Amino acid sequence: MGGDPVDLSEMFIVRHTYKTRYFDNYLRQGKGNLGPGSLSHTATNTIARYGLMPEASYPGIRYDSPVHNHSELQGYIDALAAVPVKMKKMSPESEELVDALLDIYLGEVPETFVYMGKEYTPVSYAQHLGLDMGDYVEITSFTHHPYYSRVPVEIPDNWEHELYYNLPLDEFMAVADHALKNGYTIAWDGNISRDFSQQDGVATVPGSDPSEDEVNVTREIRQEWFQTFQTTDDHLMHVTGIANDQYGVKFYITKNSWGETGKYKGFVHMSENYFKARCIGYMVHKEGIPEQIRKKLGL
Amino acid sequence: MGGDPVDLSEMFIVRHTYKTRYFDNYLRQGKGNLGPGSLSHTATNTIARYGLMPEASYPGIRYDSPVHNHSELQGYIDALAAVPVKMKKMSPESEELVDALLDIYLGEVPETFVYMGKEYTPVSYAQHLGLDMGDYVEITSFTHHPYYSRVPVEIPDNWEHELYYNLPLDEFMAVADHALKNGYTIAWDGNISRDFSQQDGVATVPGSDPSEDEVNVTREIRQEWFQTFQTTDDHLMHVTGIANDQYGVKFYITKNSWGETGKYKGFVHMSENYFKARCIGYMVHKEGIPEQIRKKLGL
Amino acid sequence: MGGDPVDLSEMFIVRHTYKTRYFDNYLRQGKGNLGPGSLSHTATNTIARYGLMPEASYPGIRYDSPVHNHSELQGYIDALAAVPVKMKKMSPESEELVDALLDIYLGEVPETFVYMGKEYTPVSYAQHLGLDMGDYVEITSFTHHPYYSRVPVEIPDNWEHELYYNLPLDEFMAVADHALKNGYTIAWDGNISRDFSQQDGVATVPGSDPSEDEVNVTREIRQEWFQTFQTTDDHLMHVTGIANDQYGVKFYITKNSWGETGKYKGFVHMSENYFKARCIGYMVHKEGIPEQIRKKLGL
Amino acid sequence: MGGDPVDLSEMFIVRHTYKTRYFDNYLRQGKGNLGPGSLSHTATNTIARYGLMPEASYPGIRYDSPVHNHSELQGYIDALAAVPVKMKKMSPESEELVDALLDIYLGEVPETFVYMGKEYTPVSYAQHLGLDMGDYVEITSFTHHPYYSRVPVEIPDNWEHELYYNLPLDEFMAVADHALKNGYTIAWDGNISRDFSQQDGVATVPGSDPSEDEVNVTREIRQEWFQTFQTTDDHLMHVTGIANDQYGVKFYITKNSWGETGKYKGFVHMSENYFKARCIGYMVHKEGIPEQIRKKLGL
Amino acid sequence: MGGDPVDLSEMFIVRHTYKTRYFDNYLRQGKGNLGPGSLSHTATNTIARYGLMPEASYPGIRYDSPVHNHSELQGYIDALAAVPVKMKKMSPESEELVDALLDIYLGEVPETFVYMGKEYTPVSYAQHLGLDMGDYVEITSFTHHPYYSRVPVEIPDNWEHELYYNLPLDEFMAVADHALKNGYTIAWDGNISRDFSQQDGVATVPGSDPSEDEVNVTREIRQEWFQTFQTTDDHLMHVTGIANDQYGVKFYITKNSWGETGKYKGFVHMSENYFKARCIGYMVHKEGIPEQIRKKLGL
Amino acid sequence: MGGDPVDLSEMFIVRHTYKTRYFDNYLRQGKGNLGPGSLSHTATNTIARYGLMPEASYPGIRYDSPVHNHSELQGYIDALAAVPVKMKKMSPESEELVDALLDIYLGEVPETFVYMGKEYTPVSYAQHLGLDMGDYVEITSFTHHPYYSRVPVEIPDNWEHELYYNLPLDEFMAVADHALKNGYTIAWDGNISRDFSQQDGVATVPGSDPSEDEVNVTREIRQEWFQTFQTTDDHLMHVTGIANDQYGVKFYITKNSWGETGKYKGFVHMSENYFKARCIGYMVHKEGIPEQIRKKLGL
Repeated sequence: MGGDPVDLSEMFIVRHTYKTRYFDNYLRQGKGNLGPGSLSHTATNTIARYGLMPEASYPGIRYDSPVHNHSELQGYIDALAAVPVKMKKMSPESEELVDALLDIYLGEVPETFVYMGKEYTPVSYAQHLGLDMGDYVEITSFTHHPYYSRVPVEIPDNWEHELYYNLPLDEFMAVADHALKNGYTIAWDGNISRDFSQQDGVATVPGSDPSEDEVNVTREIRQEWFQTFQTTDDHLMHVTGIANDQYGVKFYITKNSWGETGKYKGFVHMSENYFKARCIGYMVHKEGIPEQIRKKLGL
Repeated sequence: MGGDPVDLSEMFIVRHTYKTRYFDNYLRQGKGNLGPGSLSHTATNTIARYGLMPEASYPGIRYDSPVHNHSELQGYIDALAAVPVKMKKMSPESEELVDALLDIYLGEVPETFVYMGKEYTPVSYAQHLGLDMGDYVEITSFTHHPYYSRVPVEIPDNWEHELYYNLPLDEFMAVADHALKNGYTIAWDGNISRDFSQQDGVATVPGSDPSEDEVNVTREIRQEWFQTFQTTDDHLMHVTGIANDQYGVKFYITKNSWGETGKYKGFVHMSENYFKARCIGYMVHKEGIPEQIRKKLGL
Repeated sequence: MGGDPVDLSEMFIVRHTYKTRYFDNYLRQGKGNLGPGSLSHTATNTIARYGLMPEASYPGIRYDSPVHNHSELQGYIDALAAVPVKMKKMSPESEELVDALLDIYLGEVPETFVYMGKEYTPVSYAQHLGLDMGDYVEITSFTHHPYYSRVPVEIPDNWEHELYYNLPLDEFMAVADHALKNGYTIAWDGNISRDFSQQDGVATVPGSDPSEDEVNVTREIRQEWFQTFQTTDDHLMHVTGIANDQYGVKFYITKNSWGETGKYKGFVHMSENYFKARCIGYMVHKEGIPEQIRKKLGL
Repeated sequence: MGGDPVDLSEMFIVRHTYKTRYFDNYLRQGKGNLGPGSLSHTATNTIARYGLMPEASYPGIRYDSPVHNHSELQGYIDALAAVPVKMKKMSPESEELVDALLDIYLGEVPETFVYMGKEYTPVSYAQHLGLDMGDYVEITSFTHHPYYSRVPVEIPDNWEHELYYNLPLDEFMAVADHALKNGYTIAWDGNISRDFSQQDGVATVPGSDPSEDEVNVTREIRQEWFQTFQTTDDHLMHVTGIANDQYGVKFYITKNSWGETGKYKGFVHMSENYFKARCIGYMVHKEGIPEQIRKKLGL
Repeated sequence: MGGDPVDLSEMFIVRHTYKTRYFDNYLRQGKGNLGPGSLSHTATNTIARYGLMPEASYPGIRYDSPVHNHSELQGYIDALAAVPVKMKKMSPESEELVDALLDIYLGEVPETFVYMGKEYTPVSYAQHLGLDMGDYVEITSFTHHPYYSRVPVEIPDNWEHELYYNLPLDEFMAVADHALKNGYTIAWDGNISRDFSQQDGVATVPGSDPSEDEVNVTREIRQEWFQTFQTTDDHLMHVTGIANDQYGVKFYITKNSWGETGKYKGFVHMSENYFKARCIGYMVHKEGIPEQIRKKLGL
Repeated sequence: MGGDPVDLSEMFIVRHTYKTRYFDNYLRQGKGNLGPGSLSHTATNTIARYGLMPEASYPGIRYDSPVHNHSELQGYIDALAAVPVKMKKMSPESEELVDALLDIYLGEVPETFVYMGKEYTPVSYAQHLGLDMGDYVEITSFTHHPYYSRVPVEIPDNWEHELYYNLPLDEFMAVADHALKNGYTIAWDGNISRDFSQQDGVATVPGSDPSEDEVNVTREIRQEWFQTFQTTDDHLMHVTGIANDQYGVKFYITKNSWGETGKYKGFVHMSENYFKARCIGYMVHKEGIPEQIRKKLGL
């Protein structure tokens, strides 16, 4: 999201997101999505509104056993959130209580912090980093919506109901390629529950017959898998470049967030078909989009 | 929506909307909103995609007893819609079936029709009418979202998750006034379940004490009523002008769709406070917005 | 059902049965049985009322993937059927809709068709075939109802609540034997979920100890298995004759509907005990019943 | 049911019916109807199988507070009946228990009793009374089944799934008239929840406008009211004759079972339209049916 | 509870009780009783374990609108309490959270406070007041348990499952009388939802016929009303003495907690029958019990 | 429970317990525990109230297949028990019915019986045996209640809500040791679902690493396992003595009720840690408690 080498606090975003969803769910009378799944725009929306902090200033872990307590935290959020919905009222005490819950599990967010000898608020720090979230847009490709317009992506993780720019599949890929070739990395949202191995460092779409090559993912296949819920969102990764293997086959160099493990120490080589089939949408800097497509999109 | 004296087919829009919601609900795995409530953008979105027809070419009523069969139609839509969700598959037969249902209750939509001696498709007819739906925007005013940006309005009728431009309450009213004074009417969405009488031709916000004047609706009151679900959406009306009564009190001349009944033969005099309190949002032509506010909104 | 070599349309019966059950379920306020299981009398009742067609004139398959769409069809029938029950009203539109559903999945039933150069309606065709459904009766044998009277058989597939003639177990078998020896085949309803193998061509009732002979099925055993739901209905077969194997053991030559597979190319050798234990009831032509039993039954 | 002046035990029938339904419900895996509503054939079926007793020999009330304990009895039957269904087994203990329940609430049924100095069993007593239940048939009139055949009547009280002879509405009335004129009374099943007053001694079908005459009940109206569940079963009465009032209007003299109260001391004058609209079906002695209709019915 | 004129903090007890019930409900796997009803021993148990504070030191109301927020507090407690039950684990964070909830709605409990110039902890303050909770016992009177032993009282408010001394009804009243005559007041638990009026200052048990005297409440009537849930617990009052009205009728002078309103400014005259019928049990100082009854009870 | 060599009737206690629970569940409005689990005090409470019989006089098995019918009996009890709760009334018939149920499944309890040539009632027989149930107390050890007082044990089997004396874990063990060394056996309630083998005759608490010694069960571990429901009640055994194995390790000689099987013919050697971890509480004769602890407990 801009090539910054600082280790930023993911939990700062998580914490604000929980609060936002809690209130959003109330306004939707209990039909919101309390968590935890999100998409790339969740981060940019949060930064635009609340700023950002370094990891060191807000690690966001106060307790001992992260795994168990994470589901506990979600359990309490779900339980609390049902009360104002039932009462049709969110009192000030109610808001204090959700803050207390988040303080207990994630720690209090300091109003200011010192970084490199200088004091910041989260908002001033985001300004200092020069992050302008308005420069980023999200791209998708589905046949059930008109192309070249902003369209909804109807998956649970899109709880903010953000609109994506919808492109034909070839232009969807062309934008990604153009951005990567021009030094703009992309934030890739999709599902990796099948045919993805950080251990082996590869992600492809194998044919049903093992002797077969990869499935040739067309826009029809992409759409069918979306409509049968085989393609959905469960992960976010960072695509940082394009390369070719020894047979000349193109792949996307993708940084995962699971630590520097596996054949490529935290990176995975994603095939074109995998990208086409499994990517719900990606976020990219406007400048990374080819000129003629920007025009079609009115950007 | 452009001052056209032609009686346009409301049921053409209703029919397309039902189909759209049916599919949208499937993609959202049964968490969509199958109907019937909608907002102004439902009409403009449908026209932009499917065009429009005159009422005479598609009355959209095939059966005898409109009242009973309307709930029957909704009953069958709800029942059918649950099946593909459960099966995680929407087959071609499934789509044929929802078409058959709509044909049975609303009549088939002709592919072409003749109007004033000329043959049209719905799309070519919309072009003929010169309707460019992209010229219309929706404005709202809430304190829980940042001003001057496009924000979600979290009510069930906003099933398309359309974004609204969010303005402070005074600017929200200023835009309406400016549009009306410059000949742009506005489509007003809100709830009229209280203190609204077509019979008497008035809509005001009476104080709790009968001797009191109207409640002075501030942005805090508007927000509180929204957050306690006293202000929501149940109706759409057409505000056509501004006038003053004999005491110099300003009101909004509002055309309702219930026939030419009541003191003002189908019109209601809506007070400023009523507009502020009960309007979820309104749709207006971009040209109706004052220059300096358009700038703030990036329009 | 009369030895006709014509390939008759099973789906003609299925389609009418679905419609009948849909309406029957409505009248029973949702406590009917919408399908798909049935018994022999379902066919004869349908033929008596609606006639019959050759398979070629109504194959009853309109779609590509029979397996999936069959459950889809049932899914939609179940969903639709609940609506008039809830509304306590079955409107004409409601009936049109179930017809549309059946047309979409099974194809429209032609009002007339040409067979061997002659035009028929389904009713005239049944007359042409000389089928008089009134000549067939159903026989069962249970101890919880009086013998020699017409009694209910309380299983879900008997959704038409047809009455059976109840005979002691020995006379129940004697009628079957007499009919088969005199050239009347019988339609056998029962369950074949255990100890039945078309592959091996045999159906027997093995004892619990493998070295044992078959279980000697008495009326008490038959009744107990019925009352513990081990004997119920899941299949209909055609018993066409009696024979003895090389050891002189009697068995029933039974034509199954699963194609000409297995040791006896679609036929199974059913033991007497299997018939006694697993047969819910059978349909037979009145003429196939021994004179003295017909008298006891008042036939 | 044969003009017997003896006061027969209704509770003898009730008790056997409870036991029968308990077992029937088990066999239907909990989808039976445990009570208490029944139709005329419930009595004749019970008498045919178990005989009958005088009221004095089996009053069938053992407890003090009949009203409360009746719902208690039903409550316990419902509760007990669910257990063997869940266990898929009805043990001997289970049957003992339902007998114990009926003994506790209704008293034990004596195996023999003395009446007029002679000892009887219930069966020998029914023989002594000369009751041959096989002489009685039930008649109905609905358009959704073929006429002149035996058809199901799809209402909850027909838990025995008894078949009725179906006649056109005019012949349905003609049979009743013929029987009554020839000294055969009829047992009338239907619903009297509207427009029936024992106090006033009348039952008619008033038009919606109070100044109007009675509704002229056609077969279409009868069918529509049946299909919208306005006509169902909640009562059984004894129609004993036909008479005309002072204006020459024909009515049916009907004996109710609520005691000798009201204008006609327990009798009600039922109009022809009331009979046509509200009668689900009636039971009549075969001999009471006109010859030409008996032929059509094959009786 | 000792005649202390200090205004003690009821909310101190309420707060500790909420926490106790929260944990008790967890151990009972969600089958506890989270509130709010309690009995006299709830106070004594809490004091014995956690001490006591003056009202001024812990008013226990932090928020503005006591009425609404009380049900909100209960709503949140119920919601939170379900989480550890589902997780089968109560983590330290879980306990912090319930403390945070109680702090938000009731205010933090100070560890120490100053009263009359001296610093106390709640425990030291209870000692200072000389309250020895072990001196108080609870008495009841029911026929379904053996007399003169400690028995359970099976009502929801007895969530602590405290045992009561069970006495015959006459001795139950004799103990109350003896205590009151000897200067020991009693804490009376019971229900006052009928025939109780602070406005009129009386509580009696009127007969069903208005002309009748009071119902003469025997042990059978008391037991029947208990077993049909007409007598249960919904209130706690303080009986301070015995008096006779102008007709010589004895009554119990009872202090209610609803303020100094009504005919007797906060007091009610309770008849003997009312006491007998409506009192679930009362708490009394051991010294208030007559010697011979103490012996029977082993006290 | 006193070293009596007579084989006493367990089913006498079971039968009375079922009746008691049935009524208790009614009074608790359906929130009782109908069975079958119990604790040691269930036997002593029943004997104290209803006496006892020899096994030969009340075997308590009337039917053939004990295993199946036991769950049937429970099934009927659960079903019956719901009825008075729903009706808010337990009538005399209702009580007769539960007696009939218990008579059918367990046999009638004789009012008197002859033992060794002498006639007894259950109560006189218990007196003859010299059983004084008041001499037995129950001991437990938990940290969430104050020590040296009587405290609730919050497990489902404690449906009688009996109070236990709460001791620190070392004194809890010291009481057991003192009793056993002085000839008082103890009734041990706890759970044996893990690490218990009658076949091998041992019960220990193995460490998570197989090479490790036993877990050293502290009061913290005991409490944690209780609070995470790993320690609960599912069995009752009789601890009869203390011994040391060949390595000098102390263990508790424990008589199980599963017949004289396994290495020690029905006995199990229970380690100290097993006793500490798995024992919910035990019942012991007051005389078996060391003097100084009796004082602390006020016994």
